[in-house]
Amino acid sequence: MTQKIGFIGLGIMGKPMAKNLIAAGYELVVYNKSKPGMDELGAAGATVVGSSKEVGEAADVIITMLPDSADSELVILGENGVLAGASKGNIVIDMSSIAPLVSQKIAAECEKKGVDMLDAPVSGGEPGAIEGTLSIMVGGKQGVFDCCLEIMQVMGAAVVLTGDIGAGNTTKLANQIIVAANIEALSEAFVLAQKAGVDPEKVFNAIKGGLAGSNVMNAKGPMMLDRNFNPGFRIRLHQKDLRNVLQTAQDLNVPLPVTALVQQILGTLVNEGHEELDHSGILKFVEGLSKIEVKKQG
Amino acid sequence: MTQKIGFIGLGIMGKPMAKNLIAAGYELVVYNKSKPGMDELGAAGATVVGSSKEVGEAADVIITMLPDSADSELVILGENGVLAGASKGNIVIDMSSIAPLVSQKIAAECEKKGVDMLDAPVSGGEPGAIEGTLSIMVGGKQGVFDCCLEIMQVMGAAVVLTGDIGAGNTTKLANQIIVAANIEALSEAFVLAQKAGVDPEKVFNAIKGGLAGSNVMNAKGPMMLDRNFNPGFRIRLHQKDLRNVLQTAQDLNVPLPVTALVQQILGTLVNEGHEELDHSGILKFVEGLSKIEVKKQG
Repeated sequence: MTQKIGFIGLGIMGKPMAKNLIAAGYELVVYNKSKPGMDELGAAGATVVGSSKEVGEAADVIITMLPDSADSELVILGENGVLAGASKGNIVIDMSSIAPLVSQKIAAECEKKGVDMLDAPVSGGEPGAIEGTLSIMVGGKQGVFDCCLEIMQVMGAAVVLTGDIGAGNTTKLANQIIVAANIEALSEAFVLAQKAGVDPEKVFNAIKGGLAGSNVMNAKGPMMLDRNFNPGFRIRLHQKDLRNVLQTAQDLNVPLPVTALVQQILGTLVNEGHEELDHSGILKFVEGLSKIEVKKQG
Repeated sequence: MTQKIGFIGLGIMGKPMAKNLIAAGYELVVYNKSKPGMDELGAAGATVVGSSKEVGEAADVIITMLPDSADSELVILGENGVLAGASKGNIVIDMSSIAPLVSQKIAAECEKKGVDMLDAPVSGGEPGAIEGTLSIMVGGKQGVFDCCLEIMQVMGAAVVLTGDIGAGNTTKLANQIIVAANIEALSEAFVLAQKAGVDPEKVFNAIKGGLAGSNVMNAKGPMMLDRNFNPGFRIRLHQKDLRNVLQTAQDLNVPLPVTALVQQILGTLVNEGHEELDHSGILKFVEGLSKIEVKKQG
């Protein structure tokens, strides 16, 4: 039996992910808050319906790709939501990046109706979504994971189950802690070098092969040195992710001093109007403290 | 003409570096604060003398490998120091990891006597020193660098000139900012995962290939998961390096908020008696905040 897939949330990420499912031969039922996304998917062959509830009624596996925790709650558990239409045996895959405790809450409600759930946030951004090469971090039961693996593999190159429900988002948050702190540290290193009169590009080339080397350094270092802050992954979204980190940490009584500081920095950048810059724009905060711009000399 | 090399500072790093120079055929004159290091180098073929001044008198190129800024100042500029014995045309290579402004001060004094200087701190630790595969970050004049490159290549696999005098240490400090912040971020990510009930090893494996991936993660992640904090690079030394970062930053009016916070964390770890642990022991600070230990489940 081929599973009929529902897809809700046709934004920058959701649209190409849904299209890849159609291209892989899946029958799709879609709904989106705004019309253009639906029209585009309708033209691509999806069945467009009028509510999340109708998606729940029509599909076996319902994928949601939404901005934040509150959206997932509303779309899945709301009055006209997925669960209102879904029936026993259906599976919800929430691919939104949200707070893991919210994933657990939603899953508990789904379970009451015999609906299984995976939380399966992604990394890899729009290019990964278009190419179907996302990294997908999944939480949930092994059996449910196995059942949905083929579907997720259409969208992602690496699909990893890291634990029970919520583990996908916990993994994503761990990832986001490290990436943000890394960008901040690289920024502090560059600003110190610049102010000390040393070419930051020479510093970059001297240290990238050693213990300081990282994927952040390789990906974001050249962007900073070229002063190219085009997203990529927006400061606004990283701020949201670290807000979810701190909310989760608060609920679990986990003090995270550096993450908390970096989240304040992201908030400052948003207040300065930099929310749509790539997160490598964290550099601008550190530069601002010293009234200096990092520039390669070569 | 083969240069006669002086070597002062025969500690964990200096001893194998000096031995590699002897093995490469250089004639060595050595001095060390304590006797055992000198005896060992004497047995290996070096000429042992009684003061840094005598090393300055006997050698063409004088290498110093000392703990911190004050030691370099004393050994090079002190009453019985290198400069007191050196003459015009000699070169001092200070391979100690110190504050770049101190390197500049020492170099200015050397210049008055016609003695050139490079600051050339290293990374790679004791294994790199033994194998002659250190990364050497150099500041100074191009001509002096060229003149000393062959000597430094005996000790290092990568020898890079990043700018004028002080640039070597600035580069090293940039490196140490990134490494320390990275270890702290990895620790925060692991503790959050642990407290959320997700196997930190699964998180590690899920994210190490993505943007969060780094040489720190690959080198220190498994140590943390195995609770192996054997140095490696000691917390005490990383605290010293970040103290030099903050002192330099203070002198240059460069606020570095995350580095400052991480330095406070290193100071706390030293106060808790963890100064001789590997810097991956930063994990213990973050664990302590949540009264939890990170442990892989598998």
